[in-house]
Amino acid sequence: MSMSTADPDLPGPAADPDPGPDPGPGPAPVAADPGSTAAPAPPEPAPAVAAPTTTAPPTTAPTHRVAVVVPAAGRGERLGPGAPKALRELGGLPLLAHAVHTLLAAPSVDVIVIAAPPSPEGVAEVHRLLSGLADLAEAAGHRADTRVVPGGATRQESVALALAALPEDCTTVLVHDAARALTPVDLVEAVIGAVHGGAAAVIPVLPVADTVKAVEGDLVTATVDRSGLRAVQTPQGFTRELLAKAHAAADPAAPATDDAGLVEALGLPVRTVPGHAEAFKITTPFDLVLAEAVLRRRR
Amino acid sequence: MSMSTADPDLPGPAADPDPGPDPGPGPAPVAADPGSTAAPAPPEPAPAVAAPTTTAPPTTAPTHRVAVVVPAAGRGERLGPGAPKALRELGGLPLLAHAVHTLLAAPSVDVIVIAAPPSPEGVAEVHRLLSGLADLAEAAGHRADTRVVPGGATRQESVALALAALPEDCTTVLVHDAARALTPVDLVEAVIGAVHGGAAAVIPVLPVADTVKAVEGDLVTATVDRSGLRAVQTPQGFTRELLAKAHAAADPAAPATDDAGLVEALGLPVRTVPGHAEAFKITTPFDLVLAEAVLRRRR
Repeated sequence: MSMSTADPDLPGPAADPDPGPDPGPGPAPVAADPGSTAAPAPPEPAPAVAAPTTTAPPTTAPTHRVAVVVPAAGRGERLGPGAPKALRELGGLPLLAHAVHTLLAAPSVDVIVIAAPPSPEGVAEVHRLLSGLADLAEAAGHRADTRVVPGGATRQESVALALAALPEDCTTVLVHDAARALTPVDLVEAVIGAVHGGAAAVIPVLPVADTVKAVEGDLVTATVDRSGLRAVQTPQGFTRELLAKAHAAADPAAPATDDAGLVEALGLPVRTVPGHAEAFKITTPFDLVLAEAVLRRRR
Repeated sequence: MSMSTADPDLPGPAADPDPGPDPGPGPAPVAADPGSTAAPAPPEPAPAVAAPTTTAPPTTAPTHRVAVVVPAAGRGERLGPGAPKALRELGGLPLLAHAVHTLLAAPSVDVIVIAAPPSPEGVAEVHRLLSGLADLAEAAGHRADTRVVPGGATRQESVALALAALPEDCTTVLVHDAARALTPVDLVEAVIGAVHGGAAAVIPVLPVADTVKAVEGDLVTATVDRSGLRAVQTPQGFTRELLAKAHAAADPAAPATDDAGLVEALGLPVRTVPGHAEAFKITTPFDLVLAEAVLRRRR
């Protein structure tokens, strides 16, 4: 799981391993054009940056692609018996399809890695779902790579397995719940922008709307000052270096409820950006009713 | 505002001031039937229990009626400019009309006191709204008294003003946000049932769905253990004695976010009952979209 052993005290964004010209966070320039009239490049010298590919990791200096990891292996018991949560339907499509569709539409997302329900059927189902989205994505000019890995027994394990499958040139990694199926593209871009702007760990948050009490059993022990509390959403964004380090240091026996929690456990800073009401987590049948309403309003 | 000066350490439900036969929480028996063939009652001897009335407080031994106080004076800035929050429309009716309709349909509710927006227009508007509901309520066999008082500058002040207008025979008082317009009748009954069962202060709560962080500015300072936290809803239920005492002791300069908080400030116990997803607070335009979806599903 450890994909990085860099200085554990490294603050801020990951240092650029190649101090040469930085292509920036935009699309990677194409390294070579086979139809070009220029003299053919010699076969061995590596291109300055690798073109995006799903077939082999680049063997050359890394670029700075953005990946999104989607843990989608959970059962979702609170939705009642049935398919794994990410495959429950909303408006005729699985939650995961909605989530991936948004990620495909986000201009800064280059790679999407989905941790599928670990059974062979689960993996096959996610592959089928991605095939169904591929034509749509191509028609819309979306270009992100998509990959599928079998997920783990816990959310944390699924994220770690997906991280292990990331192309080397992904230096920014978001983790996004499939159950936040209606998250707007703008929120995805805002999180990426904050990481590119220098924050090594970024979470979208909303104020807490209700009064919050601390309880023991059915007895209230205190009213909590909610002015200092925030409800946390996804996608959460990280430099790859920091997220890998945080997962390497995580205790599998005491899983964190989110990835930022693993960064906090390292004593490193996590920044917030404003979240979005439509990025709510679809957990219960009631949430599905709300999600259908949001979908209807969008159409 | 102090309507009770009883022993401040009194735990549990209010002591019965009249240890005689208890008519229970059901409808008060009619004291006299003018069309009866029985000999006319002498004019002076008081009936055993007072008939519900909006014109004069009973002068006899109190019964045990249940009142609901509805603070509805707030502006609701987060819904954008426009009418006071309780008068914003949902499915063609003001939020307050939905809330009152539910209270009228709750079999155990005897009296409803609404703290209206304090302007003359606000009070008149709430009276109009109640007239519109009266026929509906009568047709459905609902019998609760309704009263309107001008509200105050804060929620806490509005509740106190409504409490001051309660008939004396109301020994159980609920406080309910008009903005929780779609609260199910069953939740209202459950809160009343818990007070009648011996809890002097009762709040409906739900688990907290999202990860919660403590923040300072845009920096996360901790992940909060949400297993011990609950999101608090209304109606909140109290013995009248306890609620009056809590409001009498309240600091107007440091208003609590809910009435149970005032009870906690006295060091007295507050109990929880399970809340309901549909009792969510309608605060933002997004919440209105969700509320419309819930309404559609009910129809």
